[in-house]
Amino acid sequence: MNNSVDFQTDPSNYRHWRVDYNGAIANVYMDVDDNGGLFDGYDLKLNSYDLGVDIELADIVERMRFEHPQIKVVVLQSGKDRVFCAGANIRMLGGASHSHKVNFCKFTNETRNALESAEADSGQKYIAAIKGACAGGGYELALACNYIMLTDDRNTSVSLPEVPLLAVLPGTGGLTRLTDKRKVRRDLADVFCSTEEGVKGKRAEQWRLVDEVITNSRFDQAVLERAGEFAAASDKSDVSEGIVLTKLDRTFENDGNIRYSTVDVEVDRASRKATITIRGPDSTPTNIESFIDEGANTYLLRLARELDDAILHLRLNELELGLLIFKSQGDHEKLVAHENLLLQNADHWLVNEVLQLWKRVLKRIDITSRSMIATIEHGSCFSGILAEILFAVDRSYMMKDEFEDDDRRIAHISLTDANFGMFPMANGLSRLQTRFLGDQNFLQAATALKAERLEADDAEKLGLVTMALDELDWDDELRIFMEERASFSPDAMTAMEANLRFAGPETMETRIFGRLTAWQNWIFNRPNAVGHKGALQRYGSGMRGKFDMERV
Amino acid sequence: MNNSVDFQTDPSNYRHWRVDYNGAIANVYMDVDDNGGLFDGYDLKLNSYDLGVDIELADIVERMRFEHPQIKVVVLQSGKDRVFCAGANIRMLGGASHSHKVNFCKFTNETRNALESAEADSGQKYIAAIKGACAGGGYELALACNYIMLTDDRNTSVSLPEVPLLAVLPGTGGLTRLTDKRKVRRDLADVFCSTEEGVKGKRAEQWRLVDEVITNSRFDQAVLERAGEFAAASDKSDVSEGIVLTKLDRTFENDGNIRYSTVDVEVDRASRKATITIRGPDSTPTNIESFIDEGANTYLLRLARELDDAILHLRLNELELGLLIFKSQGDHEKLVAHENLLLQNADHWLVNEVLQLWKRVLKRIDITSRSMIATIEHGSCFSGILAEILFAVDRSYMMKDEFEDDDRRIAHISLTDANFGMFPMANGLSRLQTRFLGDQNFLQAATALKAERLEADDAEKLGLVTMALDELDWDDELRIFMEERASFSPDAMTAMEANLRFAGPETMETRIFGRLTAWQNWIFNRPNAVGHKGALQRYGSGMRGKFDMERV
Repeated sequence: MNNSVDFQTDPSNYRHWRVDYNGAIANVYMDVDDNGGLFDGYDLKLNSYDLGVDIELADIVERMRFEHPQIKVVVLQSGKDRVFCAGANIRMLGGASHSHKVNFCKFTNETRNALESAEADSGQKYIAAIKGACAGGGYELALACNYIMLTDDRNTSVSLPEVPLLAVLPGTGGLTRLTDKRKVRRDLADVFCSTEEGVKGKRAEQWRLVDEVITNSRFDQAVLERAGEFAAASDKSDVSEGIVLTKLDRTFENDGNIRYSTVDVEVDRASRKATITIRGPDSTPTNIESFIDEGANTYLLRLARELDDAILHLRLNELELGLLIFKSQGDHEKLVAHENLLLQNADHWLVNEVLQLWKRVLKRIDITSRSMIATIEHGSCFSGILAEILFAVDRSYMMKDEFEDDDRRIAHISLTDANFGMFPMANGLSRLQTRFLGDQNFLQAATALKAERLEADDAEKLGLVTMALDELDWDDELRIFMEERASFSPDAMTAMEANLRFAGPETMETRIFGRLTAWQNWIFNRPNAVGHKGALQRYGSGMRGKFDMERV
Repeated sequence: MNNSVDFQTDPSNYRHWRVDYNGAIANVYMDVDDNGGLFDGYDLKLNSYDLGVDIELADIVERMRFEHPQIKVVVLQSGKDRVFCAGANIRMLGGASHSHKVNFCKFTNETRNALESAEADSGQKYIAAIKGACAGGGYELALACNYIMLTDDRNTSVSLPEVPLLAVLPGTGGLTRLTDKRKVRRDLADVFCSTEEGVKGKRAEQWRLVDEVITNSRFDQAVLERAGEFAAASDKSDVSEGIVLTKLDRTFENDGNIRYSTVDVEVDRASRKATITIRGPDSTPTNIESFIDEGANTYLLRLARELDDAILHLRLNELELGLLIFKSQGDHEKLVAHENLLLQNADHWLVNEVLQLWKRVLKRIDITSRSMIATIEHGSCFSGILAEILFAVDRSYMMKDEFEDDDRRIAHISLTDANFGMFPMANGLSRLQTRFLGDQNFLQAATALKAERLEADDAEKLGLVTMALDELDWDDELRIFMEERASFSPDAMTAMEANLRFAGPETMETRIFGRLTAWQNWIFNRPNAVGHKGALQRYGSGMRGKFDMERV
């Protein structure tokens, strides 16, 4: 596992952040260790960040919800004087491969979204309290908080200097949050985004860039007051104690395979594919009390954390595996029993957190830029919460009728309430709604068959799987598909999938991952940014970028 | 004007299309001249197309509305045996510069949208009658028709083979129209878009790729019948006679300047900018009859056609002019009188066509990937229909108070009904609605001040202009802005503007120009497509593309 990125961490390992928990309020201090970069070749000066810094932040945000459910307001601030955050580290970006830049932006975007969903799904509100320079990714971090306070002094400003300074975009949702979330007037946004030095003081409030500007002498007190007011006004229920997110049960084997307690990842580098097999639960707690007692050990929470880790690992550390194949094996009845316990107690804070985490993991799958399929084999358990995976992937193949020497239970799937709105995609619709936009009759038929055991022919007729195949065709069809898919240009796949996966309404999220990301990827390929005379490469050299002035 | 692309043509010059007009039905035959390519180095085999072919199509679609208003149904079909259309010419794409590829896709996209708006705005419905291979851009052309008929024979199929064959995307709206317009299920779309040979017969209908599949022997008769039915069911009013779109009054001068009857374009290559000055009307017809008598000579129609031509010319032939500056000079009262005549007769077919054309020209401006500003000088006439330009550009600067030795009338703007919904952007909102998404009070204030004369201070306070500047600051501020803008990376500008210009809802159109275009631009920069071993370069060589298999 040398040189590979590990997405697991815990507070004992943090190098870049401190957190104080104080009643209903947590103070999160960004205090990046200059020497703590994930790779060599750059110093993380001025609270600039790389992927390692963001992995810690993602960990903080996740633990806040499970381990510190009493927290209602989180104040994000700098642990350094004179600088809030200088954004993504430019030297890191300048030295990184295209794929690392793109994956870095994707993960940081997911983490920013997690700040927002903490309030939407759990009532944990993030405030940014800005003292000192807040530039680029630093301001994007603030934009992901739902309230921005700015001190009014000479050092403090907000800015998105990427375009004038680096010839790239603010790539972590900045442009989208300006227009969609903060609804900044477009001509003012144009001025703001082309002004290196940014905007200070009252003007920042007038332009809707921040919510409140406060004189320096009153700033700390005002932040305290505002945090207290938000906590008092919060409708988050009072929870006395969280659960501990224990270390994942995870073993890296030779050849890149990984064993988790509920997930196996098998890697086939020659064929450029990975098979992710999910195991159903062995048993389920009989009531909510025993569910709580299980803590981090409860099935769906383990599965969510393990699958999330597996996906992130494959994204960053296995760049050439272009095809992910999802399988499951297990007992439908036990899975449904587990799900029933959760759905019947969905208003319990911990159950809510587990379900919301599953929602985020499914969204992580949705936007993973690999071709993804599911194969629904005999003995599989794609019901309800697991069936969502069938509708997240690009295609699904299902075994039809008996296969010789295969005595596993005949493949079937079944739908539950979990498939009809509990786990919306980034577009705000359920995966089945999105799937059946063209014909609502299919959605109605699917709804009417909830809880039914659907074998291959029925599932295919209902449009729930792409293809039902019997023993004669199964191996050949899959082999041909996989060989063909492995031969296509990965770039064309990435772009095609990004356009086909998100029919229906657009939201801030779909725009960030669809439009902003695409333009940023484009820029990350253009000589004006990344060529040896490009602005990103020349940054810090004293020379400005030299540009081909042709417009497209 | 050597080597520059001319967007003006007329039926006497068509090389690639034939049109038969027959009562309420027009038959448009695509019959591309192999040797009629716009540039050297490729033959337009198999009804493949380049920009020149599409300029003729755009001309047909525009003349259909003005010159042939009696037409209610247009049947788009091939003039060749065995092939409907093979899509964009691959050798042309392989040899074209990045900027030409991008601009080519943009213009063809605008033309496809024009087919759809012909039905939406004027009741002219386009049918695609497909016999023979209909591949890539050919199927995208069919997708832009609102009814697709497919013959059921061995030669005929629809396909989007770009991804498997060329490692690029179907870049003329294909992916978006699959999901948004035809609402094809995403897993079927995935299968379809990765299948070189496409889909034939009944399956094409079952997958929602076409509306109707008919056996070959009955096909021509069925098309005739369907066209007749659509014409009979059309709610387009009966119009006996159209007007002729006469040749534009246009002179290309030295140094790239252009004089039209209502528009001057002045080019400053050293500063990489062009100034587009619009002249207000000298007079206006007093009633609808004299308006009709004026025909193509009527002010707004001339302006729309001339401005459209100027924008297209600058896009394709002046690639290094990164900044477009819009000005106007003229008499507010005459302009308002002209507009009033139009608005009061908006239900007249010709008035409707003129207003709809103005809508399309404004949309063309919206998505022009140049930085655009308006300077509102003394003597200008930015009222109503012309004021829309102020809200289409990225920023606006307005002269405040008197300027020495400037005896033109003090700059003011005024709003009319034209600014509150008559000319929606691609997002479906008016430009003022989009501008004021963040604060509806501004929209209400603007509405209340309709028809008022608003000088600089008021206009700035109302958020209608970006900056009001007096004589002391005017020259310096503008000079600094222009120098700065000219120094930025054109790519970063293009991408930033694409993200800031379209706040609010997304539509099929915004997705095509925002998301699909961005991904296609990315692909058009990736070695897997355009490198010397890339699939686009190797097409036709007998060798497949060699790909870097890393995913991003």
